[in-house]
Amino acid sequence: MKTLGRHLVAEYFGCDAALLDAPDDVARLLHDAADAIGATVVSEAFHRYAPHGVSGTLLIAESHLSIHTWPEHGYAAVDIFTCGGLDPRPGFTLLEARLASRASRYQEIVRGLPEHVAGGRALLPEDVVILGAPVAGSRRESS
Amino acid sequence: MKTLGRHLVAEYFGCDAALLDAPDDVARLLHDAADAIGATVVSEAFHRYAPHGVSGTLLIAESHLSIHTWPEHGYAAVDIFTCGGLDPRPGFTLLEARLASRASRYQEIVRGLPEHVAGGRALLPEDVVILGAPVAGSRRESS
Repeated sequence: MKTLGRHLVAEYFGCDAALLDAPDDVARLLHDAADAIGATVVSEAFHRYAPHGVSGTLLIAESHLSIHTWPEHGYAAVDIFTCGGLDPRPGFTLLEARLASRASRYQEIVRGLPEHVAGGRALLPEDVVILGAPVAGSRRESS
Repeated sequence: MKTLGRHLVAEYFGCDAALLDAPDDVARLLHDAADAIGATVVSEAFHRYAPHGVSGTLLIAESHLSIHTWPEHGYAAVDIFTCGGLDPRPGFTLLEARLASRASRYQEIVRGLPEHVAGGRALLPEDVVILGAPVAGSRRESS
């Protein structure tokens, strides 16, 4: 398999605090995001912090998804790293809806060997796409 | 805990193929990287692919580390995401040495709520630091 990978670095703001503090719900969200991108889950790890917060990761046949939540801030940090031609963006969109985030954003980073990355060139700052800063009360479009 | 996070997106090229294909060795590497940054491991998941390749992740009290290897390409993709004031860079340096990579690079991304990110501003392309493209036979300095 080529090393070419697509990595979404995503942030969700103004999410439901109770949801972000429920390990089973967070795990289900991440599994549903994996389903949304057509990924195959091969292993997983989740942890609940005291007094609040959940971290979780799914290893997939195509790399990984991870989430870290700060319920007290309504904030979640998510990574969706795919290879094998999977598009990670439907996972971002699903989480945006399910977290009911007031604002969100992502960057997409190209990973892999230079010869597998577009044009064989090295990763450049222009490869990073900033889709928008969070604005209270607004919802960013993800595509 | 503040949401402010530091996320190293790292790539290692020209690594030892046998090492990248040994799940126990890859797991030890990632644990040693966690130790190098002073992280506390709370959960983990590793998986070996057929015919080759290993993926692994460590959930830490301060977010996560992950690795994906392509032994057939001598390539490893690593993420070191820390919060709570931990500096992820010693983890990058440790892996660079232990993987005996011929070249490596990382980007550092700021994660978190805008008010916790430096100056309260949103994440900008300038927050992404490209330390160098891989050059065969050379070793990039990481600091």
